[in-house]
Amino acid sequence: MSAPLQPRLDRAMSSVTIPPPECMLRPLEVPFRYLFGPGPSNVPPRVLAAGGRGIIGHLHPEMYEIMNDIKKGIQYAFQTQNNMTIAMSGSGHAAMECAVFNTVEPGESVLVAVNGIWGERVAEIAERMGANVHIMVKAPGGVFSNGEIEKALAKHKPVLFFLTHGESSAGLAHPVDGIGDLCHIDILYTGSQKALNAPPGTAPISFNERACQKMFNRKTKPVSYLFDMAHLSNYWGNDGQPARLYHHTGPVSGFFSLRESLAILAEKGLEESWRHHREVAGYLWKGLEDMGLKLFIQNKDLRLPSVTTIAIPEGYNWREMLQYIMKHHNMEMTGGLGPSTGMVSVRGVLKF
Amino acid sequence: MSAPLQPRLDRAMSSVTIPPPECMLRPLEVPFRYLFGPGPSNVPPRVLAAGGRGIIGHLHPEMYEIMNDIKKGIQYAFQTQNNMTIAMSGSGHAAMECAVFNTVEPGESVLVAVNGIWGERVAEIAERMGANVHIMVKAPGGVFSNGEIEKALAKHKPVLFFLTHGESSAGLAHPVDGIGDLCHIDILYTGSQKALNAPPGTAPISFNERACQKMFNRKTKPVSYLFDMAHLSNYWGNDGQPARLYHHTGPVSGFFSLRESLAILAEKGLEESWRHHREVAGYLWKGLEDMGLKLFIQNKDLRLPSVTTIAIPEGYNWREMLQYIMKHHNMEMTGGLGPSTGMVSVRGVLKF
Repeated sequence: MSAPLQPRLDRAMSSVTIPPPECMLRPLEVPFRYLFGPGPSNVPPRVLAAGGRGIIGHLHPEMYEIMNDIKKGIQYAFQTQNNMTIAMSGSGHAAMECAVFNTVEPGESVLVAVNGIWGERVAEIAERMGANVHIMVKAPGGVFSNGEIEKALAKHKPVLFFLTHGESSAGLAHPVDGIGDLCHIDILYTGSQKALNAPPGTAPISFNERACQKMFNRKTKPVSYLFDMAHLSNYWGNDGQPARLYHHTGPVSGFFSLRESLAILAEKGLEESWRHHREVAGYLWKGLEDMGLKLFIQNKDLRLPSVTTIAIPEGYNWREMLQYIMKHHNMEMTGGLGPSTGMVSVRGVLKF
Repeated sequence: MSAPLQPRLDRAMSSVTIPPPECMLRPLEVPFRYLFGPGPSNVPPRVLAAGGRGIIGHLHPEMYEIMNDIKKGIQYAFQTQNNMTIAMSGSGHAAMECAVFNTVEPGESVLVAVNGIWGERVAEIAERMGANVHIMVKAPGGVFSNGEIEKALAKHKPVLFFLTHGESSAGLAHPVDGIGDLCHIDILYTGSQKALNAPPGTAPISFNERACQKMFNRKTKPVSYLFDMAHLSNYWGNDGQPARLYHHTGPVSGFFSLRESLAILAEKGLEESWRHHREVAGYLWKGLEDMGLKLFIQNKDLRLPSVTTIAIPEGYNWREMLQYIMKHHNMEMTGGLGPSTGMVSVRGVLKF
């Protein structure tokens, strides 16, 4: 019954020269770790179970329903009614590139506030796609005043101004009051493994009407087809078209787990989630200070409640300390990122 | 104990204006479907279970071990010893953009053989990044002769020639014998949901030494930071550096399930997997023909054993047929992709 492929198969069989790797005949080993870095954190069993369910097709009507739910869940988490709200099929960097690639055209002016790794990354991304990039720089964890921002905006007249609200590499929650009066294009993104407690691999992002006006009235196509919001908007049912066309194959399991993590947030409520984070953060800060440790962000009002950074005590080797904690307590803490490497130890808050 | 955030929190609480969405208070609903499209297909329980395990950090030594295993598993599946073998943190399109972005610089010549959706996509991707794109076109499922390829290579002198081996939109396994003698830069990629039976969201890709020579001796940086092989190479431990630096956060759960699917292939063996696919495909082809249906690819030697395409019988509405099959049998079949839309019905092979 199956003659046709025989000659091709015989030829192929004789070309198997690389044997099955020994390591793959051993079972997958995943140790338990307390994940106290800036993300991923330990994932609640409900979210893990959702990600392990049997999958359906990326273009099935039931998948569209799940994506619609995710959109509403993100709108709730972000407290926005922006229609152009989706989850990227990738980590936070995919959202970062999506934001820049879609709203900026080559040669246009971009202003980036750099006070940690995320500003550095956005400046690099914007440079690569040919933007005219200007940066304002502070030491890791530094705060830009509205006056400084206003002055730089007037000078560089950017089409995009980037500021990190939650600078996880420094533990800084940058104040945003009043910045909306200075510049109005509004894009917000995060990673599924931040605060939402889902596995990494998806990234909520939302564009307001002004951002849509800018990105859907371009002269040139965005450099990435995969991250082109004209296509992603259709895939997420945001463009008012009756049919969703095949663009790429979304991470079906990743969307299941993202939906579950957003459902937990909706059940708990934002107010309770914020209260809980604040309470646990306050408890952690006090405990660390009682031990004689200094927190990296001294002004309590500027600390992220979700990621706490500890200044490395003088005379200690941060790598050795983190290795000790991992070896003896199965606890992950990290040593800063980018410009804050070696300056801080980053410790997330256990959230469930 | 937790006074510091109180004023900020009170202000934030009063700004919760979007209520929790009703739809998120309902549990996740995922129906069972027989997935007989070109991918994703039904995922074996072992692979689902791996994807649902508790996670570890993306930069933990144990995660590096898992990534090393994945690399060896891909080398086995691809039958290559290429050091520059990784899995992308994204679907097949991420691998497609990675291949083009890294090996081509703006203004360089690219030749694309278009006989279905994948050639169309690569041509679009290469155009967006500023390549000088030339295309050779055939109807969906058409085969390019080595003579035609040789002539076009001589005419356009491309730095990159793209040919789809498994054109899932047409069900074509394009012959590749002798093409290696015509052009030597060698990159191979696929999606985790193709043949490997993992959920979508990761994409194996491999570059040979010549491809590395080209991509690591560029004058310009690749336009995407996220897909820059200089960084991904370090993340996967392929660059000989002692330390892996933070680049992006990989899809930890997706890597778990990809490793499991590659482990199943290693246990079963390529020869047995090929034999099994061939046997089941032959059985399916015969059954379809016995029902009076015509297969889209008439030459049996040119048919993909993993994806079978059926010519839509004249006088039938393909959308209605597919909807009937889904409604009455919970079976997914799809209606072609891109240029083959409405010409074929695509049916994968149940693999477990």
